[in-house]
Amino acid sequence: MAEYAAPLQELVDAFGRLPGVGPKSAQRIAFHLLAAGPTESNRLADAIRRACERMSFCQRCFNLAEGPECPICADTTRDGTVLCVVEEPRDVVAIERTREFKGRYHVLGGAIDHLKGIGPEQLRITELVRRIGEEGVREVILATNPNIEGEMTALYLSRVLDPEKIPDLTVTKLSSGLPVGGDLEYADEMTLGRALEGRRSVDRAG
Amino acid sequence: MAEYAAPLQELVDAFGRLPGVGPKSAQRIAFHLLAAGPTESNRLADAIRRACERMSFCQRCFNLAEGPECPICADTTRDGTVLCVVEEPRDVVAIERTREFKGRYHVLGGAIDHLKGIGPEQLRITELVRRIGEEGVREVILATNPNIEGEMTALYLSRVLDPEKIPDLTVTKLSSGLPVGGDLEYADEMTLGRALEGRRSVDRAG
Repeated sequence: MAEYAAPLQELVDAFGRLPGVGPKSAQRIAFHLLAAGPTESNRLADAIRRACERMSFCQRCFNLAEGPECPICADTTRDGTVLCVVEEPRDVVAIERTREFKGRYHVLGGAIDHLKGIGPEQLRITELVRRIGEEGVREVILATNPNIEGEMTALYLSRVLDPEKIPDLTVTKLSSGLPVGGDLEYADEMTLGRALEGRRSVDRAG
Repeated sequence: MAEYAAPLQELVDAFGRLPGVGPKSAQRIAFHLLAAGPTESNRLADAIRRACERMSFCQRCFNLAEGPECPICADTTRDGTVLCVVEEPRDVVAIERTREFKGRYHVLGGAIDHLKGIGPEQLRITELVRRIGEEGVREVILATNPNIEGEMTALYLSRVLDPEKIPDLTVTKLSSGLPVGGDLEYADEMTLGRALEGRRSVDRAG
């Protein structure tokens, strides 16, 4: 049995396509499900189907939503003048966890990636510009990932949000630097370089 | 949105119950599936259902099988006098990959684990003893995991397969020692102790 039986192989392959699941993990999960029996397996299969049927994208910010509007857009206490622009719905979750941000979001649906054929037209940039005009946005925080694609997307957005066309708008970016709790010694040179570049004056008031 | 919408939370939870999938990975997988859309999600849900419907346990050795008998038991060229006893179907796959073993298997369905309430009666030990009598087995290789539960199971089996009751049977065990390609320096003391204990005479013939 160098190969698996077809239904088992299909299961291993299906799990292997998920992000962060290698061939060994996929095999382990598949064997686990078959050993656990139909109740646990059906619960997983049902959860997948149900989530796909019920979840869609918020019509305003393109965050995940159970219905036409996400809980953040539906929350009238959030500050509509500050818009945090992120790549994916999971980034909204990450920022919400900080409990630092009280504004609203705009989910681009990815980042510019020419190697994968993702250009600005595939992202929700037109919708972003429209929202800025319609919703009285004063500040746009560019919170794309600090990698090549994210930086390229932030650069592109900073050009699109031209101060001559949209004069009363501040555009900011998340700061780069050393991760909290990290060791200087183990920081890569890019991060350390950014931390130096973004150094801040220390308050010396006694 | 400190919490997820219910269908999304259920999906994250369902993935989080899988072995080797932590909360972060479960979240990543859930968002991936929702972003990938219904085709990929349905493919996964279908693969889970299909595998659970079609795969069952081999009636002879309790390996996973698509039908009443697994490919190894169905293969008449395999040596029926040597039986390799393993805990789980995934262990069969691991041993088959070595291409060293030409005998048959017997899958116990776990190991003795008193903390989890798994005693010998939950394992397929009665079936093992019956097979040894019925199939003319000459050698039983105990290939349980080299951890506490596996060792306890091997010890228990070595007592059950009493030489007074089953005289013409050899019972062997996989050797313990240093993993191939490993560094002596990084071996834990248990492994190194086993490697010393199991040391073998070196052939000095020129």
